[in-house]
Amino acid sequence: MDPKCFSCQLVSWDEAYGLARKLAYKIKSSDFRPDLVIAIGRGGYVPARVVCDFLLHSLLTSIKIEHWDIAASKRQEVTVRFPLAADVHNQRILIIDDVTDTGDTLRAAVGYIKGLGCREIKTGVLQHKITSSFEPDFCADVIREWRWIIYPWAAHEDLVGFTEKILSEELCSSVDIRDRLREQYGLVVDEEGLKEVLEDLIVMGKAERQDGKYRKI
Amino acid sequence: MDPKCFSCQLVSWDEAYGLARKLAYKIKSSDFRPDLVIAIGRGGYVPARVVCDFLLHSLLTSIKIEHWDIAASKRQEVTVRFPLAADVHNQRILIIDDVTDTGDTLRAAVGYIKGLGCREIKTGVLQHKITSSFEPDFCADVIREWRWIIYPWAAHEDLVGFTEKILSEELCSSVDIRDRLREQYGLVVDEEGLKEVLEDLIVMGKAERQDGKYRKI
Repeated sequence: MDPKCFSCQLVSWDEAYGLARKLAYKIKSSDFRPDLVIAIGRGGYVPARVVCDFLLHSLLTSIKIEHWDIAASKRQEVTVRFPLAADVHNQRILIIDDVTDTGDTLRAAVGYIKGLGCREIKTGVLQHKITSSFEPDFCADVIREWRWIIYPWAAHEDLVGFTEKILSEELCSSVDIRDRLREQYGLVVDEEGLKEVLEDLIVMGKAERQDGKYRKI
Repeated sequence: MDPKCFSCQLVSWDEAYGLARKLAYKIKSSDFRPDLVIAIGRGGYVPARVVCDFLLHSLLTSIKIEHWDIAASKRQEVTVRFPLAADVHNQRILIIDDVTDTGDTLRAAVGYIKGLGCREIKTGVLQHKITSSFEPDFCADVIREWRWIIYPWAAHEDLVGFTEKILSEELCSSVDIRDRLREQYGLVVDEEGLKEVLEDLIVMGKAERQDGKYRKI
């Protein structure tokens, strides 16, 4: 896969809600009833909240898993940044995330929670990519052809990342940038959204504006 | 206010996103830059995730605040059910919730986090009701005329609650129930959504079906 050119899918709020609702029904149709639901931060926050709504489940908490590049390696280290603040001893645990991509996040989360002495763990995601080496117990949708999924709660950050990749040392107009986002990633971005993204890149010291055009610095 | 008849507002996903985005811009326009964002569980999960997106902020965690009725009193006790699992010493903290209604939740959260030794705390909500005795630092919208706000991530639970209130000991059809929800709470519910709600009430042992009609038990 050329990292400068791959397919993205922008998920709308209504689509994401539909997926979370479908995930909740799959869990509800099983015989698994969690004592505690754990959202993986940050991607699992919205799906976990919606799943709790349909399960009429009040006990929701979170952990944060982080990924770090390992120097001189393509692999990443996965660590628990914010641990669990609940007693899981003898409890049935449901862990929720947005997507399984490599599967490293859910594998790390399950290993960590298992070590805390719970009775049973199940995992659920909105979308499971078959490229993932970890298979969740529940998923609303299976993605067979790899693409980058942009969920609505991460759309701004993802767009900042893609726009940063697209900027070059030559000045280019916002129209050029929008064309490149569409050609290289299949992303259709409105003028207003792109303006906010470019302003953030300037504040972050990653881009500069000159004569109404932009380049990376 | 007659507890059997009051106004509700059902917020769509796009409206909720618009509010969260507006909240994020108010924070961004201030000189406050949080080191850590804390979502109040469960209502603050979605707003906090979206605020982090627009602030390009990675460090998000949660606490859970619970309300308990105090016997023989109209007051409620507010307790921290799941504590903070992060070190806040000398940190700038942003606490996010969905709405300030009485204000008890945010007041309890601020008191709790302050006691952990942070440097500064700011609070933000999507909607601030002027009935609240706690005023947040940031809010996207001010509600001057009290109404119950149904956010999309809590719509099923809220509807279960309202339908339970509406059921009587006499059998009534789903059409009757939908009429009552509209008349008493201004809620327009589709047939499919109400069916799921009634099924949940039956499973919970709070309703029974007889000849295609429903009554409370």
